[in-house]
Amino acid sequence: MMMKISVGVSNRHIHLNHSDLEKLFGVSYELTKAADLTQPGQFKCNETLTIKTNKSEISNVRVLGPTRLYTQVEISKTDAYKLGLNPPIRNSGDLIDSEEITIVGPKGEITTNGCIIATRHIHLSEEQMRYYKLENKETVNVLLPGSKGGIITNVYLKTAPNSFFELHLDTDDANAHMIKSGDIVEILED
Amino acid sequence: MMMKISVGVSNRHIHLNHSDLEKLFGVSYELTKAADLTQPGQFKCNETLTIKTNKSEISNVRVLGPTRLYTQVEISKTDAYKLGLNPPIRNSGDLIDSEEITIVGPKGEITTNGCIIATRHIHLSEEQMRYYKLENKETVNVLLPGSKGGIITNVYLKTAPNSFFELHLDTDDANAHMIKSGDIVEILED
Repeated sequence: MMMKISVGVSNRHIHLNHSDLEKLFGVSYELTKAADLTQPGQFKCNETLTIKTNKSEISNVRVLGPTRLYTQVEISKTDAYKLGLNPPIRNSGDLIDSEEITIVGPKGEITTNGCIIATRHIHLSEEQMRYYKLENKETVNVLLPGSKGGIITNVYLKTAPNSFFELHLDTDDANAHMIKSGDIVEILED
Repeated sequence: MMMKISVGVSNRHIHLNHSDLEKLFGVSYELTKAADLTQPGQFKCNETLTIKTNKSEISNVRVLGPTRLYTQVEISKTDAYKLGLNPPIRNSGDLIDSEEITIVGPKGEITTNGCIIATRHIHLSEEQMRYYKLENKETVNVLLPGSKGGIITNVYLKTAPNSFFELHLDTDDANAHMIKSGDIVEILED
């Protein structure tokens, strides 16, 4: 069975817990929605922040909502070189030994661990997992077409109810392979 | 036969023809060597230049020597987004319909076509081509190891006498796959 999937490219972004949201934006502040993301309930905020290290900083980093139980900064390896960091490649929320980074907001700043390079991952539901016969897999390989194409490995399967079936790549993976959001690629069978 | 090869990562850089060298640096100017590159006769210069479009600019772009018959600016797709360009993926010197870009030097500036994203390529000699039984191929596939690894396709074979056997990747390909200069990877047989 041919498994086609659309791509969503994730630029660097920040998830905040409630306590850090208040430290950065002030007490009782609430995130404001700029646009819905493809995954149900997730949204791009109007709010942006600056991320900073001793070496460098990057401004206008988008916050994604809603707040989570953990604060997490997802960057690319290209960003990591600029910032002088060496973040681990991790699934969301797996933050042990992640890199420390400073986040600067309009009302305050925090220095926290939680900086990672996100794993390549596919969002899908349990039903889609069964439909595509992927129940026994933790990762799959994906064929990216084009003149700078290839096969990417270690693409994690992340299930949640009502997931929108989509492959999420960071900007390094997307740019290396000349892939953009909305492109259709193919999950490979073993 | 296992074909191991070392990687050289190419950051954005500029090759100049003699006429453009003089426009940018002054009449009778000669490039000065900062360090030899791995390919015989090629060197990294002390000289850097700024590349510029209507949208943005990038400073401190290294010039590589010696001068060539053509001026060429090699950037990554990440750079291309920053500059608002859409350069084709090309082998060195294949500049028809390449993107126009402005190069700013200490004594003048030029606006020229010649901006490309370089193909992934392997430098090797005719003897190495025969040794590895690659004579009938224009491109190969290469296995990149690691937790963000994969297989890259359309890797061009470029022969020249005395070539140093090396795979050249741009920073997007390197960063996407968490590969750095000196890493050892594997050319795949069909």
